[in-house]
Amino acid sequence: MSAPFKKLALIGIGLIGSSIALAARRHGLVDAIAIATRKSETLDEARALNLGDVYSLDATEAVRGADLVILCVPVGAYGSVMETIAPVLEPGTILSDVGSVKAFVHKILAPMVPKGVSLIPGHPLAGTEHSGPAAGFAELFMRRWCVLTPDADTSQADVEKLSAFWRGMGSQVETMDPAHHDRVLAITSHIPHLVAYNIVGTVADLEADTQSEVIKFSASGFRDFTRIAASDPVMWRDVFLTNREAVLEMLGRFSEDLSVLQRAVRSGDGAALEAMFTRTRAIRRSVIDAGQETAAPDFGRPHQSDIDTAPDSVVRDHGGGDDA
Amino acid sequence: MSAPFKKLALIGIGLIGSSIALAARRHGLVDAIAIATRKSETLDEARALNLGDVYSLDATEAVRGADLVILCVPVGAYGSVMETIAPVLEPGTILSDVGSVKAFVHKILAPMVPKGVSLIPGHPLAGTEHSGPAAGFAELFMRRWCVLTPDADTSQADVEKLSAFWRGMGSQVETMDPAHHDRVLAITSHIPHLVAYNIVGTVADLEADTQSEVIKFSASGFRDFTRIAASDPVMWRDVFLTNREAVLEMLGRFSEDLSVLQRAVRSGDGAALEAMFTRTRAIRRSVIDAGQETAAPDFGRPHQSDIDTAPDSVVRDHGGGDDA
Repeated sequence: MSAPFKKLALIGIGLIGSSIALAARRHGLVDAIAIATRKSETLDEARALNLGDVYSLDATEAVRGADLVILCVPVGAYGSVMETIAPVLEPGTILSDVGSVKAFVHKILAPMVPKGVSLIPGHPLAGTEHSGPAAGFAELFMRRWCVLTPDADTSQADVEKLSAFWRGMGSQVETMDPAHHDRVLAITSHIPHLVAYNIVGTVADLEADTQSEVIKFSASGFRDFTRIAASDPVMWRDVFLTNREAVLEMLGRFSEDLSVLQRAVRSGDGAALEAMFTRTRAIRRSVIDAGQETAAPDFGRPHQSDIDTAPDSVVRDHGGGDDA
Repeated sequence: MSAPFKKLALIGIGLIGSSIALAARRHGLVDAIAIATRKSETLDEARALNLGDVYSLDATEAVRGADLVILCVPVGAYGSVMETIAPVLEPGTILSDVGSVKAFVHKILAPMVPKGVSLIPGHPLAGTEHSGPAAGFAELFMRRWCVLTPDADTSQADVEKLSAFWRGMGSQVETMDPAHHDRVLAITSHIPHLVAYNIVGTVADLEADTQSEVIKFSASGFRDFTRIAASDPVMWRDVFLTNREAVLEMLGRFSEDLSVLQRAVRSGDGAALEAMFTRTRAIRRSVIDAGQETAAPDFGRPHQSDIDTAPDSVVRDHGGGDDA
């Protein structure tokens, strides 16, 4: 029997694109995979890794005849990519993406979508701090959420078809309003990353001797911030440029709260500090109750146990930790 | 042959105290372990777990005849504990602790130390977010740093004896000036924890519907902040009350840097954001070069691999990750 999709066109072949290529093939979700990227070295790397069936530096070539097109380039490049491929998008094609922001994606893509093409932006909540075609692996989406943000008038059949594609790669699929997605991700992902980049930047400015010891004792918590702060700079630049309102609103709340904590520290208000440090435990409990806790903090990364086991298997908790 | 120490007195038997009891016994570092704690339920729990040889609600009983006394109570309780035990501390005894701040510990303990007793404050950079006698495990200190902050006039023989004790439990030992320790830990541990408590607190204030989705999609990074923000509130209250100057100085730098990032987001300065997100990679490389990276972000927690293997074994890297 034939696969759900005849031809998948991946525009951009970094960590997410290469992982989709490997997962879609492993699970028989597509008959053929066409890969397009701007840099010839990247294309050669993808070819050497045997990620697809056809390779091209011209996105239109990859898109021609494809019934599923997924943009896997930084959000900032969507406009120029869409200008290129719009003319060859055929009716019946599903156009999606993997960008970390969604309202901006609708705003930039929707006006350019040809009649008969279903625009269904998506965001797989998965990744590692590694970049490039060689960073991908087929298990990346295992037990990870993939959020789809179709418009109200999008074909339900197409939404279901794309949902089945992501479920086929091991994801749990959720549909959501684009603006709501951006607001939720601003606090679950964008602010945590901004804070991580910030604290690592603060250390980068410390005098050399202190900095070397900070690095030496980084396991006390700092190390885990350096990991998220090693993520792709261009991707994150675009996230903050294109989700500005939601990020600034959440950052405003964060900064106000931090000022309150700072005042409590300065004034030695132990009662306020203890109260603050206690109320956060309820949120922690909710995370565990929601089944969102796993064996170790992973900033969204699948654990070896996830990779070794089926999506419905239980993840054992080895216990968590922090240093003082 | 007899163990390096005849009698170890543990004042306080939470996560760290119980882990010391289990590790010291497993590695034959002490002949006997005396455990003292204020709450009778906690003492009963420690007895049921067979953590020691003698148990008492009276710290003086535990300390009498001990050649190694380690305070494992929140730093805020040191004063009253020391008033109680000082009269029974015998010459030749080593008095240490496991508090997360060190300058304050010297200030509060030093004046009360009897002649002939060696005060050698310590800080094992290890822990989990779990509390209580049942949370301890013998492998907690494996390959973790333990920082000792002796005074210049402290007996070198005693410093070496206590260092050997920690190395015997699997730790790497470093001696450091107390004020310098507090400054380094402020940025490696205290600020990361403050920031984690803060961001979880921000979420605690969000409207219910957004909050439930934040929890649902918490694997995108937020979840790992909830883990550190679940740490013992009283211990952390005392950390911020007793390391105020260093925390406020580092927090000031952090806030200034955050304002710069915030302005770059508000003004859409992509070049500044990309530059900021790129320079942090050098720090990340230093952390890896320093051999401080492990299989997964763990906020100081030992991984299963650490627990299964010897201190000098190699930790495999399963690759890191972050979500957008």
